[in-house]
Amino acid sequence: MDKKAISAWDVARLANVSQSTVSRVFTPGASVSEKTRERVLKVAEELNYSPNALARSLTKQKTNMVGLAMKDIQNPFYHEVLGMFSKKLRAKGYKILFLYTENEEIQQEELNQFLEYNVEGIIVTDAVISSNIVTKIYNHNIPIALFNRYDKNIPCSSVSCDNVSAARDIAAYLYDKGMKDIVFITGKRNTSTNQEREFGFTEFFNSKGIQITALEGDYTYERAFHLTKKMIEDGHQPQAIFGANDITAIGALDALREKKIAVPEETVVIGFDNIKMASWPSYMLSTWAQPIEQMVDETINLLITKTKSAPFQTVKLKGQFIHRDTTIVK
Amino acid sequence: MDKKAISAWDVARLANVSQSTVSRVFTPGASVSEKTRERVLKVAEELNYSPNALARSLTKQKTNMVGLAMKDIQNPFYHEVLGMFSKKLRAKGYKILFLYTENEEIQQEELNQFLEYNVEGIIVTDAVISSNIVTKIYNHNIPIALFNRYDKNIPCSSVSCDNVSAARDIAAYLYDKGMKDIVFITGKRNTSTNQEREFGFTEFFNSKGIQITALEGDYTYERAFHLTKKMIEDGHQPQAIFGANDITAIGALDALREKKIAVPEETVVIGFDNIKMASWPSYMLSTWAQPIEQMVDETINLLITKTKSAPFQTVKLKGQFIHRDTTIVK
Repeated sequence: MDKKAISAWDVARLANVSQSTVSRVFTPGASVSEKTRERVLKVAEELNYSPNALARSLTKQKTNMVGLAMKDIQNPFYHEVLGMFSKKLRAKGYKILFLYTENEEIQQEELNQFLEYNVEGIIVTDAVISSNIVTKIYNHNIPIALFNRYDKNIPCSSVSCDNVSAARDIAAYLYDKGMKDIVFITGKRNTSTNQEREFGFTEFFNSKGIQITALEGDYTYERAFHLTKKMIEDGHQPQAIFGANDITAIGALDALREKKIAVPEETVVIGFDNIKMASWPSYMLSTWAQPIEQMVDETINLLITKTKSAPFQTVKLKGQFIHRDTTIVK
Repeated sequence: MDKKAISAWDVARLANVSQSTVSRVFTPGASVSEKTRERVLKVAEELNYSPNALARSLTKQKTNMVGLAMKDIQNPFYHEVLGMFSKKLRAKGYKILFLYTENEEIQQEELNQFLEYNVEGIIVTDAVISSNIVTKIYNHNIPIALFNRYDKNIPCSSVSCDNVSAARDIAAYLYDKGMKDIVFITGKRNTSTNQEREFGFTEFFNSKGIQITALEGDYTYERAFHLTKKMIEDGHQPQAIFGANDITAIGALDALREKKIAVPEETVVIGFDNIKMASWPSYMLSTWAQPIEQMVDETINLLITKTKSAPFQTVKLKGQFIHRDTTIVK
């Protein structure tokens, strides 16, 4: 894929102007006469010249690229997140250098590509990252923000939903309905999202003297489906199931249906995320809506404007309980 | 987000070597003594220096970046595609510059960012692109490949499933079962995927003297759900429904269930793509499996190795019919 690049020098030569004049024509707001501008643009058009963002970035130390690392590519929540980041970053003139990792924990060598390309900031969505790697990135003076993750031991900014308080609100709702036989299907236990949701939910019931059942899931539909099916076959039919994310709750819901258990009359089901699928007529899943747009805005804000004055900020946003057919009897 | 970049010059000065020696240390295969290499690497480590891929790209005219444009971010098929491209391109040393477009047809200004960043190739997945824009990109000497799209009027390479022959195979299966009351729920009619699937399916039945019913969908669950529901309410219960993609077929399936119509006993349902959700226990959707991995491999192959010798190649891969519970009576 070699290509013979047309440079500003080629354009300058044919337009009979200096190279810096060509540069000014392609710099917003720079001074250049209308006549010269027209001549340069005409030559540029003829030569198929486009100003080289990479070359510009070397001079100005600005690449306008943000690295975005993502792991759970099967979870619709992160597709909405990716679309939102792409749209919002573009509106601010930034491009996304995209990294999909298959590793449980993100590796230094994976992030090196971001460093090599001089990204101006790094967003890590759902991949687990070590404080060691985060520190290395900060030593390169590149701001990093965790999206939908939080770890007090990791020295960087983060934006997430206030999972503890959300899970507590869900627990309080079930408790107010007089429910005591409750199952929580966990997500991956090494993620902050699961740790916080499990803590808030369990702790609320514990404070009321109620012991809930936790089944170890992994944020996938398949695992939640099989865990729920087995539980019912083993003779345990709880009053409510709270899934650590929507995909988990949907897996549980389908297993209950297969076992002919009426939802919500016999068993209530609640998820977390409010993915689009949760509002499909076949599911109409009650869930906690994460304020994705606001979370994305705050993350970009942290990376682009606030970095210098306050390097490590923790933003927690509330979101809201959405009641649909899996909690409300029609 | 200013950053003071450590340059090869800083490393050279502290390590007491020339700048070109520093460059050689970071160039695979370049000659440099072991002692010098160690000294340079030690200084580089202390200064947090990482060789600048952008600077290197200016000298070598290689950025190792590929632009990837995507539209239908809600369709799980494209998430699998994105994950696969990320994994396969990384294995070959390429990074993805990611673009999500909300426009029905991709705009020149959206692709300009790829040109400015000197990507070495552009992959357009599901966005519609005009031949005018494709020609402009070729004038910049940047190869472009359409993934899962084909248009004989657009001068570029493309990789897709042989949709016409796949849809014909599906039609032949239904015809062999003696079915005559058939509904096809279309995708977006301005996409080649829908045009080819609709053509292959309709034309097969026409050749047998059978007129099928086409309902105009848009590749979304919601539209397929409502179209199917309305059709049943209007008194038409077909023997088979073929959805232009899996999400469409799943929407139809859920509507049939809501109307208490037994699948596949009363109505058979078939999708296209074989997304992960098609194998969820609650759906077990029969579908046409696109050979994603092979399609991704071919696309990368076209962009990276074959460009010069044969600029415009059309690759069509077969895929296979996957029978699950929506065609086979258990």
